[in-house]
Amino acid sequence: MLKLFIGNKAYSSWSLRGWLACKLSGLPFEEVVVPLYDQDWDQRREGDEFAPSSGKVPILWDGDAVVWDSLAIVEYLNEKSGGDRFWPTDNAARAMARSMAAEMHSGFAALRRKHSMNIRQVYPPKTPDEDVMHDIQRIMELWAQARARYGGDGEFLFGEFGAVDLMFAPVVTRFVTYSLPVARFAPAYMNAVLQHPWMQDWIAGAQEEEWVIEQFEQEPA
Amino acid sequence: MLKLFIGNKAYSSWSLRGWLACKLSGLPFEEVVVPLYDQDWDQRREGDEFAPSSGKVPILWDGDAVVWDSLAIVEYLNEKSGGDRFWPTDNAARAMARSMAAEMHSGFAALRRKHSMNIRQVYPPKTPDEDVMHDIQRIMELWAQARARYGGDGEFLFGEFGAVDLMFAPVVTRFVTYSLPVARFAPAYMNAVLQHPWMQDWIAGAQEEEWVIEQFEQEPA
Repeated sequence: MLKLFIGNKAYSSWSLRGWLACKLSGLPFEEVVVPLYDQDWDQRREGDEFAPSSGKVPILWDGDAVVWDSLAIVEYLNEKSGGDRFWPTDNAARAMARSMAAEMHSGFAALRRKHSMNIRQVYPPKTPDEDVMHDIQRIMELWAQARARYGGDGEFLFGEFGAVDLMFAPVVTRFVTYSLPVARFAPAYMNAVLQHPWMQDWIAGAQEEEWVIEQFEQEPA
Repeated sequence: MLKLFIGNKAYSSWSLRGWLACKLSGLPFEEVVVPLYDQDWDQRREGDEFAPSSGKVPILWDGDAVVWDSLAIVEYLNEKSGGDRFWPTDNAARAMARSMAAEMHSGFAALRRKHSMNIRQVYPPKTPDEDVMHDIQRIMELWAQARARYGGDGEFLFGEFGAVDLMFAPVVTRFVTYSLPVARFAPAYMNAVLQHPWMQDWIAGAQEEEWVIEQFEQEPA
């Protein structure tokens, strides 16, 4: 059976992506939560199961195969689950979806650095920094184009919940946590993501966690 | 036919990755060089063909499909060319290859920021910053593991030249340009990359370019 190592559900945005990818695959998987910055963390990460990633999460083990990056987990599970669950079938939609997922994977550094994921909090609105505004505007542009071209009757970016939605899911929670300014069309999509049963499951898990890590509880200045 | 937009061959590391991916696909493609920071750059990037990427390169057009990220180009062309040219066929090797390509895609920020690609220069050795050394050590660890486990009789990380080699190709040129310290096993692999006919072709193209952009000609302090 697949075995997925993740960090705290309240804080670990990349873990959320890897976990949603496992859900989307439809394959059974065992979930192992290894709290970040827990006192046992350094000991735990010395175990062989963490070696390939130099201690980062998420990590997916599948027998002797190990995948230690969330976008690689998406492509690995896409192949393993038959190739039709993660990306749109239409070729131009698929090209756009892969580009958007990759842009999320390597980009939006300002938003990620200044507004770290914190599922349990909601802070009052503040004017974001210029580089964060730039990231938000680009995300709005991408979401709007995907919805307009390929959303169809579905609630998600390319209709059904797919790989691009899971890549942006932690961005949706950040927009809520920090009351960031979004375009008028965006709340309907964000709500669809937040109400998805898998997200509800993850959010409930985050609420039940006991760990509070001060460095992630800082409201941005 | 496929149409690939790239930046200057001397400086644009992501363009090199996209271009090598087109070569690896075996599919015919048209190459369009759009010099970065050229006086016409702002005008050129206003064209519709640049719109999806907000002006970044590389961009691959395939009819009405557009892919604007190098890792997305790899996966797009992997599917289009039959699924057996980019990644190893062995499942565990494939998992590792995808993880390494993804780690390169989002990581090694210090190396990339402080040692930008400059194919035409070789600078004398200097002691790199600590965060750059950390990146180099991680890359050595990944290369060594791939070669030891899956290199076999081939010269490349997973035997034949593949997606992971093309993702690391601009790192190989940086190691040479800045005379960075590498492990004893590494030069044989680096030489195989540099001697590959496609790399020779790209390097010749870089030598022939007339553009010199001062900001990329800075030797690190």
